[in-house]
Amino acid sequence: MAKNITDRKDDYSQWYLDVVREAKLADHSPVRGSMIIRPNGFALWENMKKALDQMFKDTGHENAYFPLFIPKSFLSKEAQHVEGFAKECAVVTHSRLKSVDGGVEVDPDSRLEEELIVRPTSETIIWDAYGKWIQSYRDLPILINQWANVVRWEMRTRLFLRTMEFLWQEGHTAHATEEEAVEETTRMLGVYKTFAEEFMAMPVKTGVKTANERFAGAVDTYCIEALMQDGKALQAGTSHFLGQNFAKAFDVKFQDQDGEHKYVWATSWGVSTRLIGGLIMTHSDDNGLVLPPKLAPHQVVVVPIYRDNEQRENVLNYAEPIIQELKAKGISVKLDNRDNFKPGWKFAQHEAEGTPLRIAIGPRDVENQNLELARRDTLEKSIVPLAGITDYIEELLETIQNDLFNTAKKRMDESTRNVDTYEDFKNEIEKGGFIYAHWDGTAETEEKIKEETKATIRLIPIDEDPVPGECMVTGKPSERRVLFARSY
Amino acid sequence: MAKNITDRKDDYSQWYLDVVREAKLADHSPVRGSMIIRPNGFALWENMKKALDQMFKDTGHENAYFPLFIPKSFLSKEAQHVEGFAKECAVVTHSRLKSVDGGVEVDPDSRLEEELIVRPTSETIIWDAYGKWIQSYRDLPILINQWANVVRWEMRTRLFLRTMEFLWQEGHTAHATEEEAVEETTRMLGVYKTFAEEFMAMPVKTGVKTANERFAGAVDTYCIEALMQDGKALQAGTSHFLGQNFAKAFDVKFQDQDGEHKYVWATSWGVSTRLIGGLIMTHSDDNGLVLPPKLAPHQVVVVPIYRDNEQRENVLNYAEPIIQELKAKGISVKLDNRDNFKPGWKFAQHEAEGTPLRIAIGPRDVENQNLELARRDTLEKSIVPLAGITDYIEELLETIQNDLFNTAKKRMDESTRNVDTYEDFKNEIEKGGFIYAHWDGTAETEEKIKEETKATIRLIPIDEDPVPGECMVTGKPSERRVLFARSY
Repeated sequence: MAKNITDRKDDYSQWYLDVVREAKLADHSPVRGSMIIRPNGFALWENMKKALDQMFKDTGHENAYFPLFIPKSFLSKEAQHVEGFAKECAVVTHSRLKSVDGGVEVDPDSRLEEELIVRPTSETIIWDAYGKWIQSYRDLPILINQWANVVRWEMRTRLFLRTMEFLWQEGHTAHATEEEAVEETTRMLGVYKTFAEEFMAMPVKTGVKTANERFAGAVDTYCIEALMQDGKALQAGTSHFLGQNFAKAFDVKFQDQDGEHKYVWATSWGVSTRLIGGLIMTHSDDNGLVLPPKLAPHQVVVVPIYRDNEQRENVLNYAEPIIQELKAKGISVKLDNRDNFKPGWKFAQHEAEGTPLRIAIGPRDVENQNLELARRDTLEKSIVPLAGITDYIEELLETIQNDLFNTAKKRMDESTRNVDTYEDFKNEIEKGGFIYAHWDGTAETEEKIKEETKATIRLIPIDEDPVPGECMVTGKPSERRVLFARSY
Repeated sequence: MAKNITDRKDDYSQWYLDVVREAKLADHSPVRGSMIIRPNGFALWENMKKALDQMFKDTGHENAYFPLFIPKSFLSKEAQHVEGFAKECAVVTHSRLKSVDGGVEVDPDSRLEEELIVRPTSETIIWDAYGKWIQSYRDLPILINQWANVVRWEMRTRLFLRTMEFLWQEGHTAHATEEEAVEETTRMLGVYKTFAEEFMAMPVKTGVKTANERFAGAVDTYCIEALMQDGKALQAGTSHFLGQNFAKAFDVKFQDQDGEHKYVWATSWGVSTRLIGGLIMTHSDDNGLVLPPKLAPHQVVVVPIYRDNEQRENVLNYAEPIIQELKAKGISVKLDNRDNFKPGWKFAQHEAEGTPLRIAIGPRDVENQNLELARRDTLEKSIVPLAGITDYIEELLETIQNDLFNTAKKRMDESTRNVDTYEDFKNEIEKGGFIYAHWDGTAETEEKIKEETKATIRLIPIDEDPVPGECMVTGKPSERRVLFARSY
């Protein structure tokens, strides 16, 4: 087995790219900053979509689809929003090419009257539509989600983590009251936390962003933050309370039960293919990708081992009913019966691709009514009797899922600590991980800490009782500790 | 019940738009030619996607995702391809906006070195990637499908039928031999025919396009053609045998088992949200949308009828176990228990939205252990006993599905005839429908017929034994009758 993956300790960034390549998740594209999501990567995204989509539907949301192009004038309607996105917009200016010698050129006669922006996010085009759909309190709430591609002209890109075009979902809801909208914002934050922890086995911290880190146009941005193996934080999902900002920008009012015309309250929330980057960096090891069973495209792979046709037939006959029983239990199994690859090569490939459980079956296993199981997460192998194998595997997959979460949780907990002085903070931040420290609440101090330490405030906690203290930098009063880290 | 839908006989185009609006399928968008797919329309598309996606996976295909943007130089590599799409391209030329007084403008300093085209289809970007993935016959076949949005700058647009941006799937496969690629092309044509007929209940004709109507870059374009209620044909899906055109344009060769380096053979195939337009125009009536049970977001709606709280409770208690039993059978049921709308209003709404079967339950039904069923397709009502109701409904939904297909098939068959003289053809084409006639095989005659009658050759049949004859226009020899119609 050739070792195609750099060790994490030698070069973490290269390790990440190696894992993505060897697991055949994605490729760079000839368009700078864009990526090709290969079948293995897309199958993973499909499983993530399926689980999230069900959670959205269970909380009352419907899917819809809004246009890719946003008129330039729409973006300008919400002042902070346009400021946030203006510098990273793909702009469509023409609608035709024309033939010239040896190729094609943009036809200057096809210049558009108003330029179109390829959506970086859809608040503006959606709130224009909501303006037409909402008249009365009876039309509220509107609970819509969209699965779509969006484009942000990023300069520094990395597969999955930051790409010019990415796939995501964006929920956009409209409510009669502030209370309802805030409730929706935190409900969807809860959905993201549940998804991250129960499906991705990726523990997260939740809280609210500082004004500096807020979504352009939001009143409050809630987030989930995960901790990667190199000690850096990853913002993995955000849920925005938008107040009445977009309702005012697009003049969206409703007649309430009291007969009054009021502006509508809004939320938006999204997660993207960035989650795949988070998944990779939470669980994978120096042999490649490690996938949690709940999201793995194949939970189990069966590799038959034989030297001749007779052995081949015996082994495959032995494997067949096992595979059928596993499938009957809803476990996704792949039989890798390719003749042109040796078992050792297959083992390495499935290891690189992260399949949670490998079953190897050779002639001796058939004779002894055994199977060899190999866990991807721990790389442990064991010989297990055929009797009761499907129940055993079902439980083992649950164990793997739980172990992945517990391992990641333990790592996060061990890397999370309180720091009281700025001196300690500067030392501690070099070691990576999450640091709770006191901050005076000002943008100036936040900026100073970022410049001097490259650490940002990942979130202000919301779910614990605040304990006041003194800012580690200025000594001024602090309402509560906030969470610092270096981040992606 | 206010009648918001124009009758078909009065104004067919307006009827179509009325049905779309009243069924809340889609809205016009402020971006000319783009549409908003509303939750009802998107739920329908999700069901279509789900069925098609399973059929693609059952035939060995995997999903992936390629970039939205195509470098301009890529489009030019296949000569016919660029000629076909150059005149309808959305072109991205800049990557930033900048603030000016009272708004934002495109930042001239952000002009791109090479313009990017928003994909009108993905052959070029995908064959560039295949060039990197394919070295040996062992890498073949590649069987990839993509669900994506594409943009074609159409001048005359109509919701679902022709929009600037639309959603579709595009399959792109690579093969070692011509035979395999042709087999794939016709296999996927078969998948489309099966989907159209068995899920959409929309009968189709299959065949191959003339050179004039071929996909830009294809050697042969196979298609399914459906007949709408106004007698016009709708191209509902295409499957292209691309020969080695794109392999040559992108220099994609593989080393075969005989050691020789050969160009790869290709196919591509797609269906789009246009199918929703076809579905609407195949089954709907002057009361609104009619949906086939296999694709309806809700197959059954239950409307309780009551005058007071006691009746309400009795009726809902009676309905509850029926709903649970239907759900247990895998039937999707919606209970419309909104208090602020009257039953008659609800009936009209569900009729407009096309729910295949309505159950109304009032106090007398509870007393008599009955239910009132109303079929959307025939508008027939019947009183049915509670005993055995779930089996009855399960069978009735199958009956509705079959009846919809048979009705549409009968209409198509009755509108399909042979015509021998050009004089007769000119008269007959005015009546709409499909006409089989002899044609001399030349582009000139095809063009003349189109100019004089607005009829095009929808397809050249492939599945029957050809009977030769004489061209109705020129009298020259004709190998077989081809299928004419006016079309969308």
